[in-house]
This record gives sequence, C-alpha cells and structure tokens, in this order.
Amino acid sequence: MSKIFVDACLGKETPYTPVWMMRQAGRYLPEYMAVRAEAGNFLNLCHDPKKACEVTLQPVDIVGVDAAILFSDILVIPDEMGMDLSFVKGEGPKFSDPIASQADLERLIGGEEAASRLTYVYDTIKLIKEQLAEDKALIGFTGAPWTLATYMIEGQGTKTYNVCKKMMYSNPELLHNILAKVTEVVKLYMEKQIEAGIDVVQIFDSWAAAIETEKYDEFSWKYMVEIAEYLKEKYPHIPIIMFPKGIPAFYDRVYGNFDVFGVDWATPMELAKEKLGDKYVLQGNMEPCRLYSKEATTESVEHIQSVMQTKRHIFNLGHGILPDVPVENAKHFVSECQRVSKK
Amino acid sequence: MSKIFVDACLGKETPYTPVWMMRQAGRYLPEYMAVRAEAGNFLNLCHDPKKACEVTLQPVDIVGVDAAILFSDILVIPDEMGMDLSFVKGEGPKFSDPIASQADLERLIGGEEAASRLTYVYDTIKLIKEQLAEDKALIGFTGAPWTLATYMIEGQGTKTYNVCKKMMYSNPELLHNILAKVTEVVKLYMEKQIEAGIDVVQIFDSWAAAIETEKYDEFSWKYMVEIAEYLKEKYPHIPIIMFPKGIPAFYDRVYGNFDVFGVDWATPMELAKEKLGDKYVLQGNMEPCRLYSKEATTESVEHIQSVMQTKRHIFNLGHGILPDVPVENAKHFVSECQRVSKK
Repeated sequence: MSKIFVDACLGKETPYTPVWMMRQAGRYLPEYMAVRAEAGNFLNLCHDPKKACEVTLQPVDIVGVDAAILFSDILVIPDEMGMDLSFVKGEGPKFSDPIASQADLERLIGGEEAASRLTYVYDTIKLIKEQLAEDKALIGFTGAPWTLATYMIEGQGTKTYNVCKKMMYSNPELLHNILAKVTEVVKLYMEKQIEAGIDVVQIFDSWAAAIETEKYDEFSWKYMVEIAEYLKEKYPHIPIIMFPKGIPAFYDRVYGNFDVFGVDWATPMELAKEKLGDKYVLQGNMEPCRLYSKEATTESVEHIQSVMQTKRHIFNLGHGILPDVPVENAKHFVSECQRVSKK
Repeated sequence: MSKIFVDACLGKETPYTPVWMMRQAGRYLPEYMAVRAEAGNFLNLCHDPKKACEVTLQPVDIVGVDAAILFSDILVIPDEMGMDLSFVKGEGPKFSDPIASQADLERLIGGEEAASRLTYVYDTIKLIKEQLAEDKALIGFTGAPWTLATYMIEGQGTKTYNVCKKMMYSNPELLHNILAKVTEVVKLYMEKQIEAGIDVVQIFDSWAAAIETEKYDEFSWKYMVEIAEYLKEKYPHIPIIMFPKGIPAFYDRVYGNFDVFGVDWATPMELAKEKLGDKYVLQGNMEPCRLYSKEATTESVEHIQSVMQTKRHIFNLGHGILPDVPVENAKHFVSECQRVSKK
C-alpha cells in the first residue's frame, strides 16, 4: 500500500498535501501527559519501547496527521556515547562532564558500539510498525552533529554558545574531531533505524542559526550531507528531510543528495520556493503560535497553499507545537491543510 | 570640531571607517566590574549618573572606540511607566505584574509624565558630554516598542514568546494599544536624550526575529519608523541607527527615514549591501565570538572591509561583546578596523 507521505517526500503526485507537526507527540495532548506521568520522567519514557510506541501513535489517532514521528530525544546519542545525560526540572538537559579536550573525546564510545547501545529505539520502531496503519509513514530522526555537539561541549542548553564558539575560532580541529565522531555514530544509528522499519529520515539542526553563514557549511552542513549521502547510497528509496532552523541567508549555498528541505517559520515560503523549490520538496512552515487562533491558522494555511499550489510540498509547522495549544486547534490545522490541498 | 562617527552615519567621507562595539561598556572590562561592585547592582548603576558616566567613558579610553554609548538599560522605560523592574541573579529582568489586559495597560504612566521620570538618564548624558573628547560621539538609545513590549507582557525574558504571540494572533488590538503607548513614551524619551546632548540615536529591536516576516512590519517596524520620522522632523542633523536583530528575510521590505541600518552577525554583509547599501549606511557585523581569537578577528575585519570598501560603513560587532572576551582582543578588533580602512 502506498503511503501518501512517502510519495510526497519523493516528489510524486498525491491526492492532497500530507501534514504532520514537529513535537506532535507532546505535552499539548492530555493522553501524552498521562503516559509520561506513568513513566515517571522524560528519559524513562524514551527508554521504554511500549510507552514510547504508545505516545508516537497518539497524534495519528487523535489529530489525524499523515505521518508518525518516533518518540525519542536527540540526546540519547551522546548519552549512549558515554556521557551522563539528565533532565533537570525547569532547566533542561545536562551532561555532568562536557567535552573540553581531545582526551575527553577519546574516552567516549564511538561507531558501532555506541549505535548498538540504542536498542530501545530500534525496539520502539518495531513495535510502532506493528501497530501503525499501513497508509501512514513513520519518521525516524536524529540531531545534526553540530546541534548534538553544542550540548556535549556546553554541558547544557546555552544562549550564547560561547564555549562552542571559543572552540570553533580557537581550536577548530578539536571541534571537527568531535563532529566527525558524532557523525560516525549518527550514520550507523540512522541505518539501524531504517533496518528496524522507519520510512523516512529527518535530520534536525535545531541550532543551525548559532553559526555565521560563512562557517555554517564547514561546521554543520557538510556533516549533515555526509550522513545523507551515506544513507542514500544504501537506501535510495528512503526519503531524507533536512531541517536546519533559522538560516535563510544560507539558502543560496544549500547542496547535497536528500529529498526534502524543512523551512522554519521565520523564513517566508516564497523565499524558500524561489531558492530551493526546484531542487527539493519543501516542508513547512506555519508559525506554531498561530495555533493559538483558528482564524490565524486558516489564514496561514491558505497563504502557504497559495504559494506552494499543492506541488512538491509537505505541510508542517515551522517549529514544534507548544504545550499550551488547545488540541482542537491542532486538529483544525491538520484538517485545514488537507482541505485546502485536496484535488 | 567634526566627529568622524557622526559624519560616517550621515554618509560623508571620513579618513577611516569608525568603530564601536555593542555592550562595549560591560563586564569584559575589569574597570567596569569595579564600578558596578561599588554600585551594588546593575539597576543602581543605571540610576547613578556619576557612575553611569564613568562606565560610559571607559571603553573610549581603554579600547579606543570612536563613539561612546550611554550606559543604561532598555527596561528603564517600562520601569518608569510604573512597572516594577528587578534583576534576579542568574535569571535576568523581571516585572512583577505583566500586562495582560487593557485595564493593566491603562494603569501605566504614559507620554510626557513617564519620559520626565527618566531624569537620571538625561543627567548622565549631560555629565558624559562634559567629559567626552570633542571628536568622539555619544550614542543614545532605546529599545524598540516590540522588544520592550515582550518583557512587559511576558514579565521576563522568554524563549518562546508564547504569551506575546497568543496576544498577537488572538487579541492584536491590545498588543497594538501597548505598542502605541510605549511608542509615545519612546518618542519623548529620545527627544529628551537629544536635548540633553546625545549625537546619535540607536533603536535596538533585539527580539525582531521573534516575529514572522509577514507580521514584522505591523507589530514592530512601523513603530520604529514612526519614532524615527518624529525625531528626524525635529532634529534632522541627528543620525538614527536602526538595529533589528536577525531578520535578513525582511531586508527586501525595509523602508523609512533613518540613516544607518545595523546588520547582525548572522546576516552576510554582502546580502545587506546588495539589499540596503544604496539607501542606508551599514553598521556591523563581526560575529562577536570571533573576539576569542585575534586571527579570527583579523580575518573577519578584512573580509568586511573587502565587501564595504570604506564606503557608507561603520564597523561594529553583529551583537554585544561577551563578558569573557580578553580586553586585549577587543583592542585588537578596534585597531584592526581602523588600520584596514585608513585611506
């Protein structure tokens, strides 16, 4: 049975433009909050295939999206490379021992050994595939090496990225060594996700906008492209979505063998279409805060549809859905996307 | 005596490209830390004309910049409008009673009455002008109404701006009423700064990038332009610098009667020159983290110079200098800017 979401990623004609939402398996859903409460904490939920499967499937059933996205966290990778991940309430993720030297890096587990430790992710994928309707796609994902490295170097989230940047400008070799080691694990991790059953890959570069345009290719994009080329050679039928957030000034320089480019909400779809629409299918890009108002949602969906014209497009938000959005408004977004694009 | 910085703002030929740094009166200077320790806290320092004058002048003497910028904080405006500002250690600014309704807004002090309460700022300016060398310029500043409103509505800094955005999409009229009231105060505040002696105005829209391109003019830019037009009509000789951070996708739509457009570090200077260089003098835009390395600093200064060619340009960082930058590296930046642009 063909999956409309996979077809759209590959640029094929579909009966309407498919839609999903970043963070669709998340805190705005009371059903998610219930499972998370059972799990005790966020990391337990990532580690529990049965519960992670359950929350992955919720938005497909409740909100009606055309694809599920694996419930997990980008930071399980450095965690399984031997860094000690914890989530401090109100402060976000922490690593107790950030990477500051080549010796720190060499102590980390790399390659196949690290990728093999993420069995709970592959088990989750297998469970989901048993239960997901055949016409729905399952998206697997990873953080981009740069985005992962920011946490590994800063030890936590950061406003200024000053520890990473000091390394970028004063010791670029060490930063490249970190990025290369992470890239190696990510390649194998995504390969194992594919072998476990995902239909589509998304690479999130959430902190793309922290790098100046002049240096973005060197410290982030080229590693993302390397991952995409590796996967495309082995699995040409699996679509790859790149989502570097907040870098419209880099759109002129985008290259690489992948299928879909994710457009963030701050970049006008018109600009993305002009610069990238011929080369890639575009995904996006409603401002997530429009979900607070049904009228503002419909206005944006109709505008995006008028730009993209049901061609080479996947509807999505331009960033994750926020926890205080009414479920009813999320449903409205999904049904409006399907309505306006129906042929 | 003519001031090279003012001449450059007005697009006149100058012997070299002048330079200053955002947050140049700040924590990277041990001399600043000493005065701040005497003051007890940040807000006391803003309220004390003698000490505020002293830290304003420090970078002119120590680092050799071509302009001083008034030491103050953008949030003194809502504070004097009757909101209760405090700085919580490690958490940043807080207002105890954020604006959530028209009634909340109406309780705030507006117009002339609010602007008149900011006497410590005008006194600071008069003191600085007595002591600043005649060939150096003094920059006065304000936050843009949108940026100020984000704090007034959220009650603090925010990652998601979700309270503001809920208002933007669900109750835009209230948001416009807030912006209009703040705009009125800002106009009079900047007028009084000019009367007290500042040579140049800078309007900081630090949170410009929080608004989607489609809505940026409506909720921020038009209010900034309104302030600029008001001041330009009364004080045509006073240059106005607009600094909306992080909105390269809006560059095609920029309009208004002002002199200098500040380019943030994430926007390539080539792009800014192409889109805005004929209409406005450009200010910027070295990535502030390059200050961690003298080599990376020189590389960027030479690149920016090669793009701008000593024409219609002011050197600056593309955002504020960070506290852990060595003073020596800041001096290196300033002298490199002056060296490469000397005719």
